[in-house]
Amino acid sequence: MTAPDRHRFADADRGAVYRAIHQRRDVRHFRTDPVDDALVYRVLAAAHRAPSVGFMQPWTFTVIRSPQTRARVHGLYLRERQAAACFYDEPRRGEFLALKLEGILEAPVNICVTCDPTRGGTHVLGRNSQPETDVYSTCCAVQNLWLAARAEGLGVGWVSILKTGELREMLGIPPHVIPVAYLCLGWPEQLRTRPMLEEAGWRERLSMTGVVRLERWDGGPEAGSAAAAAVAAAEAEIAGFEAAPEPR
Amino acid sequence: MTAPDRHRFADADRGAVYRAIHQRRDVRHFRTDPVDDALVYRVLAAAHRAPSVGFMQPWTFTVIRSPQTRARVHGLYLRERQAAACFYDEPRRGEFLALKLEGILEAPVNICVTCDPTRGGTHVLGRNSQPETDVYSTCCAVQNLWLAARAEGLGVGWVSILKTGELREMLGIPPHVIPVAYLCLGWPEQLRTRPMLEEAGWRERLSMTGVVRLERWDGGPEAGSAAAAAVAAAEAEIAGFEAAPEPR
Repeated sequence: MTAPDRHRFADADRGAVYRAIHQRRDVRHFRTDPVDDALVYRVLAAAHRAPSVGFMQPWTFTVIRSPQTRARVHGLYLRERQAAACFYDEPRRGEFLALKLEGILEAPVNICVTCDPTRGGTHVLGRNSQPETDVYSTCCAVQNLWLAARAEGLGVGWVSILKTGELREMLGIPPHVIPVAYLCLGWPEQLRTRPMLEEAGWRERLSMTGVVRLERWDGGPEAGSAAAAAVAAAEAEIAGFEAAPEPR
Repeated sequence: MTAPDRHRFADADRGAVYRAIHQRRDVRHFRTDPVDDALVYRVLAAAHRAPSVGFMQPWTFTVIRSPQTRARVHGLYLRERQAAACFYDEPRRGEFLALKLEGILEAPVNICVTCDPTRGGTHVLGRNSQPETDVYSTCCAVQNLWLAARAEGLGVGWVSILKTGELREMLGIPPHVIPVAYLCLGWPEQLRTRPMLEEAGWRERLSMTGVVRLERWDGGPEAGSAAAAAVAAAEAEIAGFEAAPEPR
């Protein structure tokens, strides 16, 4: 009889995976140093290894290096940012406008990740009940890319303040293809210990006990229960991987 | 002047991250051995470290161990599977029905991952232009969970053949909350080298050259070009991490 946990990684390797997850950051401040194609394609190879419903692999990765295109996308961003600012009152508006929310021009590489819902033909296994799982698969690819980039020492920033229709037109994306993520990729000026929005006092990290439920969406763990203690212990435990020194 | 790649992981750690990405599988065949709470919460702690638009952290993880609830969800699955089979003609229908597409009853833990679009209040930074980024963030959490599970030697299977409305009712999920993923978690009977659907001849893995585009969605890399060669080289390179022996 083989042990159930025989596929478990060795402790050091397990730690490396948790550290990539833990130290991944949404980066907005980039150095302008170039990023080799080999490195770009390596993180895309990681993205291409994402799970996908019915193995449809609906993603396409458009790699943009052209300064002209990036300048045009940056123009879209500026307008959206101005529009978004209208929804805040002072002092929140000032705080919002002070945040750096993209690195479109500084990061040498931009990547538009799209989802083609027709990739798998007319009927895709597992998409009968939940058609949007094609987009979900594409998001898993983004997260793979992000973690691979972290391991490579690269920074990634997801720019969500862009209108998909405008991106579609600018990049020649057909009407049926969905722009899911617009990413900036480059060498980070720094990798923060905490998310920028937390550091800036914009919003706090939620306690894990608040996002874990037992048996039902409206179930425990009740504060002070053994389950709540176990949840808190797990959070502290993987935080330990973060504290590990840089291994170089 | 510091080196741009100073945050890069050491080679062994970088390899561990790529190996988790590469060896992650969608598992449908589980052993019934129990999975400790500590382990469940550890992979959930990894999920909770996902990126989220405006740092809204919209996810909730409902951990289901009750055999009664799992039996009811399994009932939903069986009906959906029968309905999905109607869309295939023979011999594809027989192939479809022969595939094992879930492990709801065997896996000791099921996890329903939901997205609460109201989590961040009425206006969430970065969600003005793309409201669906809350669900995208939740998918990134799923992928974190999946990779952490791989490092722990656990298997995860995403059951997408379920109706979200029925899940909502069964698990007491409010109408505004979106069930994004229903996952089975347990010890895998085996971890396949290739995806099950590829092994079963259902669908092939796409070549990376087909999913990478340059500058525009309809741009290269042209077959035989230097870029196409670089893309193929990157794919072969990270595949090398897969071939590394199990480290225990």
